[in-house]
Amino acid sequence: MRLSEKKRDLLELVTREALYEAAVRILREEGWKGLTMEKLAQRAGVAKGTIYKYFESKGDVLFFVMKRNGGITAERLSEIREEVVNRRVSASKGLEEALEVAASGMYRNRHVIAAIGRAFEEDSSLMARKSHMCHQGEDHPLSVIRRCIRDIIAAGIEDGSLRPVDPDAAETIIHCTMMGLGRLFAIEGPETGVPSDQICGLLKTMVLQGLSAKDEKPEGVRG
Amino acid sequence: MRLSEKKRDLLELVTREALYEAAVRILREEGWKGLTMEKLAQRAGVAKGTIYKYFESKGDVLFFVMKRNGGITAERLSEIREEVVNRRVSASKGLEEALEVAASGMYRNRHVIAAIGRAFEEDSSLMARKSHMCHQGEDHPLSVIRRCIRDIIAAGIEDGSLRPVDPDAAETIIHCTMMGLGRLFAIEGPETGVPSDQICGLLKTMVLQGLSAKDEKPEGVRG
Repeated sequence: MRLSEKKRDLLELVTREALYEAAVRILREEGWKGLTMEKLAQRAGVAKGTIYKYFESKGDVLFFVMKRNGGITAERLSEIREEVVNRRVSASKGLEEALEVAASGMYRNRHVIAAIGRAFEEDSSLMARKSHMCHQGEDHPLSVIRRCIRDIIAAGIEDGSLRPVDPDAAETIIHCTMMGLGRLFAIEGPETGVPSDQICGLLKTMVLQGLSAKDEKPEGVRG
Repeated sequence: MRLSEKKRDLLELVTREALYEAAVRILREEGWKGLTMEKLAQRAGVAKGTIYKYFESKGDVLFFVMKRNGGITAERLSEIREEVVNRRVSASKGLEEALEVAASGMYRNRHVIAAIGRAFEEDSSLMARKSHMCHQGEDHPLSVIRRCIRDIIAAGIEDGSLRPVDPDAAETIIHCTMMGLGRLFAIEGPETGVPSDQICGLLKTMVLQGLSAKDEKPEGVRG
């Protein structure tokens, strides 16, 4: 690669980062309605013409933010999965970290999730596009996240630290809880009835204790 | 009440029941697109003119089914809550039953949930109406269900069978999981990757063990 190519790639990276940061800030502070291409260009410090090299519409900006948020979580979970699979970290410790990453990501992004939820409510074409995306293949960040959590659970069952459940079923429940939590932020707004960080923390310990192999209670809890 | 009034009320009840059964059967077998007012009248064994005394539109039928499904669950959970509050049943046994009712209700209704999900995807005015309903007051079946589960958890914390968590946070997590599960059925269809009954069963034991006071693991599971 020649220097000019490297420079161009670096510039591209920096621009994308600036656009991401600006889009998140606008969504958080002013919501979906407050997001305009002009404002995005201004906040990111790029020319308005440049914006249209990256995004055709406001909808594109939204999916860019969603994909990037998911991508960061997917990357961190892939690392944890590697650690667990290569036995550098115990599966239960790995699951704890994975839940921490996923739950704290939901919490940290709750304002953006709320803004995105309102955008979907206001513009049904966005919802159709999202549904289409959800049915896509393996490389989607969400697919990566789901596969990592599933593999970590499977490793925990294998080493005996987790109960011998179906790893797909357990992962599906965790996935459902995260999706439901995202939906709660999207519908009720970032500040639900109970502090969101408390929900995220409890979620982590409930899942960990719920799947733990220790003191199995096959017929449920006794009073 | 005179006999004729009693007869009228009874007829009303029977008709509603027949309409509910017919609507569920059509939604399950033929989905939202298969539901027409003609077919509903025919399957329920009532005149087409009668249908319009109950419903103005297909949308009305959908909300009638949703509300009735939720109403049945709300009623059973209210009974369990009463048993627990009056100490006829232990809180942890009550929570087990409440989760069983909620999870098995989701499973039993998964074909209808999937049909309703597709209806919302196809008709955004339905979604707007649902959002409006979700923001409604205390008498909504979902509010009743949530309050019952919260009260049962609070009773379990009081009698020491459940860990001293925030009952609102714990209820919110259970609510999120159920909503996410409903969403999974609605998006992926009634048959998800793993058998839905297995997911519902595991969900129950995960929550019960996850909230159990026995062998508290405050810093998560150790490998």
